[in-house]
Amino acid sequence: MARFIKDRKASKGQIPGSLILIGRQKMDQSILNLMEYNSKSLVEIELKSIDEAISTKSPGSVSWLNIYGIHDLDLMKQIGDLLEFQPLLMEDVLNTDQRPKFEEGPSYNVVILKMLRYDEIEKKISSEQLTLILGKHYVLTLQEQLGDVFNPVRERIRTAKKTSRLFDADYLAYALLDTIIDNYIQITETVGRDIESLEERLFSDPDKGLVQEIYTLKTELSYLRKSVRPVKDLIRDLLKSENSLFQEKYFHFLKDLDDLVTQATEAIELYSGMISDHLNIYSTNVNNRINEVMKVLTIFASIFIPLTFLAGIYGMNFQYLPELSFKYSYLIFWIVVICVVVGLLIYFKRKKWL
Amino acid sequence: MARFIKDRKASKGQIPGSLILIGRQKMDQSILNLMEYNSKSLVEIELKSIDEAISTKSPGSVSWLNIYGIHDLDLMKQIGDLLEFQPLLMEDVLNTDQRPKFEEGPSYNVVILKMLRYDEIEKKISSEQLTLILGKHYVLTLQEQLGDVFNPVRERIRTAKKTSRLFDADYLAYALLDTIIDNYIQITETVGRDIESLEERLFSDPDKGLVQEIYTLKTELSYLRKSVRPVKDLIRDLLKSENSLFQEKYFHFLKDLDDLVTQATEAIELYSGMISDHLNIYSTNVNNRINEVMKVLTIFASIFIPLTFLAGIYGMNFQYLPELSFKYSYLIFWIVVICVVVGLLIYFKRKKWL
Amino acid sequence: MARFIKDRKASKGQIPGSLILIGRQKMDQSILNLMEYNSKSLVEIELKSIDEAISTKSPGSVSWLNIYGIHDLDLMKQIGDLLEFQPLLMEDVLNTDQRPKFEEGPSYNVVILKMLRYDEIEKKISSEQLTLILGKHYVLTLQEQLGDVFNPVRERIRTAKKTSRLFDADYLAYALLDTIIDNYIQITETVGRDIESLEERLFSDPDKGLVQEIYTLKTELSYLRKSVRPVKDLIRDLLKSENSLFQEKYFHFLKDLDDLVTQATEAIELYSGMISDHLNIYSTNVNNRINEVMKVLTIFASIFIPLTFLAGIYGMNFQYLPELSFKYSYLIFWIVVICVVVGLLIYFKRKKWL
Amino acid sequence: MARFIKDRKASKGQIPGSLILIGRQKMDQSILNLMEYNSKSLVEIELKSIDEAISTKSPGSVSWLNIYGIHDLDLMKQIGDLLEFQPLLMEDVLNTDQRPKFEEGPSYNVVILKMLRYDEIEKKISSEQLTLILGKHYVLTLQEQLGDVFNPVRERIRTAKKTSRLFDADYLAYALLDTIIDNYIQITETVGRDIESLEERLFSDPDKGLVQEIYTLKTELSYLRKSVRPVKDLIRDLLKSENSLFQEKYFHFLKDLDDLVTQATEAIELYSGMISDHLNIYSTNVNNRINEVMKVLTIFASIFIPLTFLAGIYGMNFQYLPELSFKYSYLIFWIVVICVVVGLLIYFKRKKWL
Amino acid sequence: MARFIKDRKASKGQIPGSLILIGRQKMDQSILNLMEYNSKSLVEIELKSIDEAISTKSPGSVSWLNIYGIHDLDLMKQIGDLLEFQPLLMEDVLNTDQRPKFEEGPSYNVVILKMLRYDEIEKKISSEQLTLILGKHYVLTLQEQLGDVFNPVRERIRTAKKTSRLFDADYLAYALLDTIIDNYIQITETVGRDIESLEERLFSDPDKGLVQEIYTLKTELSYLRKSVRPVKDLIRDLLKSENSLFQEKYFHFLKDLDDLVTQATEAIELYSGMISDHLNIYSTNVNNRINEVMKVLTIFASIFIPLTFLAGIYGMNFQYLPELSFKYSYLIFWIVVICVVVGLLIYFKRKKWL
Repeated sequence: MARFIKDRKASKGQIPGSLILIGRQKMDQSILNLMEYNSKSLVEIELKSIDEAISTKSPGSVSWLNIYGIHDLDLMKQIGDLLEFQPLLMEDVLNTDQRPKFEEGPSYNVVILKMLRYDEIEKKISSEQLTLILGKHYVLTLQEQLGDVFNPVRERIRTAKKTSRLFDADYLAYALLDTIIDNYIQITETVGRDIESLEERLFSDPDKGLVQEIYTLKTELSYLRKSVRPVKDLIRDLLKSENSLFQEKYFHFLKDLDDLVTQATEAIELYSGMISDHLNIYSTNVNNRINEVMKVLTIFASIFIPLTFLAGIYGMNFQYLPELSFKYSYLIFWIVVICVVVGLLIYFKRKKWL
Repeated sequence: MARFIKDRKASKGQIPGSLILIGRQKMDQSILNLMEYNSKSLVEIELKSIDEAISTKSPGSVSWLNIYGIHDLDLMKQIGDLLEFQPLLMEDVLNTDQRPKFEEGPSYNVVILKMLRYDEIEKKISSEQLTLILGKHYVLTLQEQLGDVFNPVRERIRTAKKTSRLFDADYLAYALLDTIIDNYIQITETVGRDIESLEERLFSDPDKGLVQEIYTLKTELSYLRKSVRPVKDLIRDLLKSENSLFQEKYFHFLKDLDDLVTQATEAIELYSGMISDHLNIYSTNVNNRINEVMKVLTIFASIFIPLTFLAGIYGMNFQYLPELSFKYSYLIFWIVVICVVVGLLIYFKRKKWL
Repeated sequence: MARFIKDRKASKGQIPGSLILIGRQKMDQSILNLMEYNSKSLVEIELKSIDEAISTKSPGSVSWLNIYGIHDLDLMKQIGDLLEFQPLLMEDVLNTDQRPKFEEGPSYNVVILKMLRYDEIEKKISSEQLTLILGKHYVLTLQEQLGDVFNPVRERIRTAKKTSRLFDADYLAYALLDTIIDNYIQITETVGRDIESLEERLFSDPDKGLVQEIYTLKTELSYLRKSVRPVKDLIRDLLKSENSLFQEKYFHFLKDLDDLVTQATEAIELYSGMISDHLNIYSTNVNNRINEVMKVLTIFASIFIPLTFLAGIYGMNFQYLPELSFKYSYLIFWIVVICVVVGLLIYFKRKKWL
Repeated sequence: MARFIKDRKASKGQIPGSLILIGRQKMDQSILNLMEYNSKSLVEIELKSIDEAISTKSPGSVSWLNIYGIHDLDLMKQIGDLLEFQPLLMEDVLNTDQRPKFEEGPSYNVVILKMLRYDEIEKKISSEQLTLILGKHYVLTLQEQLGDVFNPVRERIRTAKKTSRLFDADYLAYALLDTIIDNYIQITETVGRDIESLEERLFSDPDKGLVQEIYTLKTELSYLRKSVRPVKDLIRDLLKSENSLFQEKYFHFLKDLDDLVTQATEAIELYSGMISDHLNIYSTNVNNRINEVMKVLTIFASIFIPLTFLAGIYGMNFQYLPELSFKYSYLIFWIVVICVVVGLLIYFKRKKWL
Repeated sequence: MARFIKDRKASKGQIPGSLILIGRQKMDQSILNLMEYNSKSLVEIELKSIDEAISTKSPGSVSWLNIYGIHDLDLMKQIGDLLEFQPLLMEDVLNTDQRPKFEEGPSYNVVILKMLRYDEIEKKISSEQLTLILGKHYVLTLQEQLGDVFNPVRERIRTAKKTSRLFDADYLAYALLDTIIDNYIQITETVGRDIESLEERLFSDPDKGLVQEIYTLKTELSYLRKSVRPVKDLIRDLLKSENSLFQEKYFHFLKDLDDLVTQATEAIELYSGMISDHLNIYSTNVNNRINEVMKVLTIFASIFIPLTFLAGIYGMNFQYLPELSFKYSYLIFWIVVICVVVGLLIYFKRKKWL
């Protein structure tokens, strides 16, 4: 399966708006976790069905329903119907290769973006699609699989003081987005540190494996860019949305998200430039080493090949070869050898090959 | 014939607006297929002439007339006259190298774009020009040759339920465009998978054929980009058109097409970057291998050329060559040989050539 | 003389607006051809002077005066005065390195652009500046030399039917521009075909001359881009001009020109990318071949240099060299030789050098 | 730690707006320096607490409170509360990897940017975050550590004449920004000089260390760009701010800052291009040298290897080898040797290898 | 000193707006030349002080005061005071590294740009800052040193006819700018010609010096671009200025300057691309030559090294070596030699190395 785009073959022949999961199903059974709280109480339960969420809903409290697993199409259809989704919207939610985007409905706001994970051993980034639906008094998050970056937010809800902004559903949505984007920066930093750490090896010990590492980091940066860059547009759309459910007093917070994404994007571009430089430098250093190897060969060969010829002459068996019987021949031979060696060494020294 | 632009030599000396087919004629005889349906009935027939379509037209139903083969200039002229086309518009339809575009007329909308095909064996993308003309109650599609991506839509029309949106001609047009653009994503995915699969061979087995494969994929990406990128403008033009025949309730669907094209375009750019990286990496690896080959040569030559000279000395036939008669000469010779070998091996080890 | 910019040294020290021909004079004597026609009659004559054109001008007919040769400064001045040109405008006309542009005057529109020619043998594009002046009932074209791409238009005038749009001067101007831009596409197609045809040689027979061909095609593409790209701005300026003499019913035709120029520009960019790729691929292939040559050398040298040393040992004339008198020495020598050869061949096989 | 982006791991699980220092703490104890002055008097004292600043504040005078060390979170919280900071703003101040930006509050303007330092020996640029808060009658600057570029401003305050613009707090803020940006230009000039000075060594003595120097300078330019480029946006935001505390008479001064940043940015881009060229040139020169080394090797080897073979023939011990006993054999041998040498020299001369 | 940016170290610690010359002082003594003229008379004198200019000023005439040498800070201050310059403006004038810009004051327009000179022998462009101040009835030009491109304008003033536009101060300013920009085109043409002339040497005789020439031309193009590109913004600012002193009837002339600068900029970009291509081609050709050298070496070595081994075998002194006494050994030896040679030649021929 291609990593940077997912085939929608499954959806061919389907009416636009029909529900099909594009991507792999990542878990067996959907899990629905509800946190319902106000300044007085907090209820945390695992629901069996989406109906339960509605029946237990008490006015004046904020509900955060988090669903792990989006492969249960009945459940998804139920949610779409319940929220009176526009056609196609649920299709976007189920297309796990959906480009990050913001959609506004009559009574809800939808944010679709990627939640990233970095496997430090494999040096691979993996992504999971997160859909965040914000209503007047609730937040609904849909994840592909178990495990997320939201634990700090959960902890904060549990320990929230009376005046906490978390009692506003829109602030809760912001806090979740903030956690996701913070995670982008963290992953960029990790990849960046790996890239910077290549520098030393580039000059001291440029083995062949380095090329592969450079290539892997380059690819991961592309993957990171693909996930992070569209979030910038998303937040801008959100900021100028007319049906936004975000209160104006929290606009400042959204602008801060914009700053964070800009920062991540700029760092990604910087590291892209740097990793390209690494490849160029590596390539230049390989040529430098070829040059060095060639010099050693040339020096050895240029000195000893003529001398071998010289020795070869007097190894000939011609009957008439006057030097053979001359007494000082061998002495003269050595003098010539030394002259040739010294002469060539001076020549190479002058050429700065030594 | 150039692949990325088609000569319009044929049209030189012609009055602009005169009908000439630019490109190859791809089939012998035009085929006219009509689907006419409403919530009660569905008629599917092959027509003999365009007049038949008008005569059979019943009010309150949607007609989709699909024509394979655009080389029949009389037929084309007839269509142009019938729809009261602006001058030049039919010329654009017949120019199979036409840049994808949207045109609005007084009573029709015209969309010209490319329908792509990917030959998985030849690894070549071929394209066919598709013209979609949308009227109040009809859709007219013109194709260069038999075979298209529309079968799922046909199937859906046949099985459409009473409430289907397909009873709106504009929705039908959207559904056709959606199928074409879905196909772009699918082809991008296929090409992308081919590109990603090169990675492994790049490091394990970088043979010479790889360069040609890289080149071919690069060219196909260019071809893909040429066909897909202008569709973005097309859809934007369509969205802001004043005479658009698309109902506002379907604008959401058109925006979704915009998203899909953006996604395809971004993936194409990503893969373009990746395939360029592949070439760079390949090139660096070739240099690495030159370096390795040179090292082997240099080690062999540097060790054995001096030794051959040494052996050459004592192969000389000088009458006066004292070492020849010295008893331990041969032993010393071997000691010297071993010293030279060991010394050079240490030297190369230090240089990390071994 | 530089090909991509022309020195204006000649104009230094001149009052801006003074008439000097920048560029080479390309013919001896200016030739003035007049076509004056309406739905009833057509007059084609060669004039002696510009005054004649005015005196013969009959109301209700369209006049197309085409002048070959713009070096006759008196003639040019006369034209400028006659049309009440703004200062500097005639200077632009005479500067054959003028950037393509559109200028609107009180009673005329001026379009300056390049007419291209492709020498298929020399593989060189040459350009000639064309000035088109459109008035209410006349078109005036100024060319540097004999020969142009307008013959099809002439033919159409001669055979024009009663209802021809050619009886509008603005349509005539459009038709001329269309011919020029059609010619851009044709030349782009020819250059593109040459570029695409390099592909095969790139992989089968990458000789040294190929680099020069690549370089030449790259330069011609630059030349083409320099001439074509500004025409896009020109047409946009023309479309939004307030004093445009083009009737609104022909705006559609001008937009079509815009499409054609966009298409040519995009193809030029595509081919620029492709020719750059060609150079990269060529360069990688040269390295591949260096690698191959090196392998052959290394294999030969690594096998036979050690063996020569071995033979050298037993060619030494030491009196005490026990192996010489041992009966099986020569046999053992060959066994050793075969072992070395086989061992090295296995080693090279493993390294995939064979 | 990555140099181009800082992990915000510490802030995870924190409520947005909570105060955490992101980055290293660079000093032990915060130092608060107050300059309070008007046209009559100047007070310079080191404060113990922020409260002191308020208590000593006399109306009609300008106060500049400079704080070295931002790690004291209590102090920072106190400042935030005192100035009634919007939530998140103090978080930005404490994030030492904050992207340069301008924020306007109801009664204050905040500018966050980088103050750079260039270590001429290590050839490394280091940066320190500077926060400048401008109120009606005060300027508050927050620095990470001791040492800054503000001494000239301090000196000017001390020697200010009655009419000095420094008696306006906004002018003081401008003067401080001016000093920081002047410092950008100065550092760009230093780095640029280093880059230009490489040119000579590039052609005369291209040793291996040069690659590392090129790499280091490239990285420093990236660092410089990252710090300087966003300042352009910052100043534009400042200029179009609605709650700006800058008087209109000083807008001219702010525009001048814009010019300076543009100039620095353009020079950075120019030097980036130049240093990339340096790497290319270096690489080409390495190849040139490989070529030269190869030529020397080829000439020596091509001349002497065939000759050695020739000598080898007559060193053979065949009993029947007629030339051995021929009297002029040795003479002919030398003639052949000389012919071969001369022939090959002519051949190499023709190939321009000599 | 860095060539592309000038340190402003000198200005540190100075009040913004204080007058310091940034750059080298290029002459000893300022020279003030006044041309004062109307349709009746012309006065050309060298002034001693700026006051003289005012005292001699006669109404109804245009004054052009040209000052060579801007290092005389008293003089500069006097001018600034006289014209009631905004603060900082004179600082910009004295900063000889000022980015080209247009400033409008209440009663004056200021244009700061570079006047270029091309040293044809050193192949170096040098620049000099020119400040042009336009008032109602005067033009004031400030130059760094003696020598300029204005002589043609001076000549035209001297020979101006009654109706000359030169009697308008704004036209005079235009004429001066026109001369400077004409000079840009001329220098671009000279550099471009040098670049184009490299082409031939690139393929016929690619010596090492060529790299340095390419590098030098690349650098000069950067320098040219740095000086010319911002002039585009300058002229646009001038065109949309609200306090412009240029009469509307001369707007056409200013637009023409815009065209000229665009043309120069485009040519600079074209030549930048071409010179980069040159470097790439050079590099590819070096590799081609390495390949060729390697082939010669490999052919010689591969043929003669095995043969030398063969000869070496029969040079061994083994007592038992049957071939030695065999009569046809020597003949067979030669047959083997010829077979090996022919075999290898065929092999190399097939590989297209010969």
